[in-house]
Amino acid sequence: MNKKVYFAGSIRGGRNDAEFYRRMIEFIKKTDTVLTEHIGDLSLSSLEHGEDHDVQIYIQDTAWLRESDLVIAECTSPSLGVGYEMAYAEKLGKPVYIFYNRKKANLSAMLAGDSYFHIFPYEDEEEVFPEIKRILEE
Amino acid sequence: MNKKVYFAGSIRGGRNDAEFYRRMIEFIKKTDTVLTEHIGDLSLSSLEHGEDHDVQIYIQDTAWLRESDLVIAECTSPSLGVGYEMAYAEKLGKPVYIFYNRKKANLSAMLAGDSYFHIFPYEDEEEVFPEIKRILEE
Repeated sequence: MNKKVYFAGSIRGGRNDAEFYRRMIEFIKKTDTVLTEHIGDLSLSSLEHGEDHDVQIYIQDTAWLRESDLVIAECTSPSLGVGYEMAYAEKLGKPVYIFYNRKKANLSAMLAGDSYFHIFPYEDEEEVFPEIKRILEE
Repeated sequence: MNKKVYFAGSIRGGRNDAEFYRRMIEFIKKTDTVLTEHIGDLSLSSLEHGEDHDVQIYIQDTAWLRESDLVIAECTSPSLGVGYEMAYAEKLGKPVYIFYNRKKANLSAMLAGDSYFHIFPYEDEEEVFPEIKRILEE
């Protein structure tokens, strides 16, 4: 209970799944803490940027990765940042749980072929919530 | 001369830039070796997959990353695999050179904000080749 969760989802790679990220984050927050709540902010645009700002994001996100108890990622949308975070979390030895909609995407072989990750393909978004509940109760 | 280059580009994230990957790979091969020549294979589909196959890809690609002298990545298209490879190459201490078309994409803050990487935004594909030449001659 009250685990610190790093939630990973696409920002600049595309915001198609932002509403689903928001629902996953709200679900996790019922029992635990989400360090990266802004990933589900529907006003967050794929276009926000700025060099100094990028350095601040990098410093903050890697600090949150170190602080987290586990990582939950929604990987249906391709994203350079999420891919980077997956390898970074693996390096830190954090448990990583990856969800993707197999009707919409083939997961990258660099994630699907890496036995370190716990991977959950789904076909209906509703399948995801009981899995998250189980993960948080582990 | 005859450096071993790990070239990184999107496969399952989308093959929009595959023809440009092919041109970059052909250019590098004039003087040096590209370990990941298949990235520029125009018959390679974003749909190829299979669980055992994924494990083989993962093992092969991480072996090539370890074997490489440097990494050159084209990051205009978002890609989980390329993002993973960037963090993996950083962990190994390999020099990483990232190109992206700033008219088409905003680079992820997890790459743009990480001072480890050498980043080259471009507006015209032709700008890339003299930069690659310079990198290979370093």
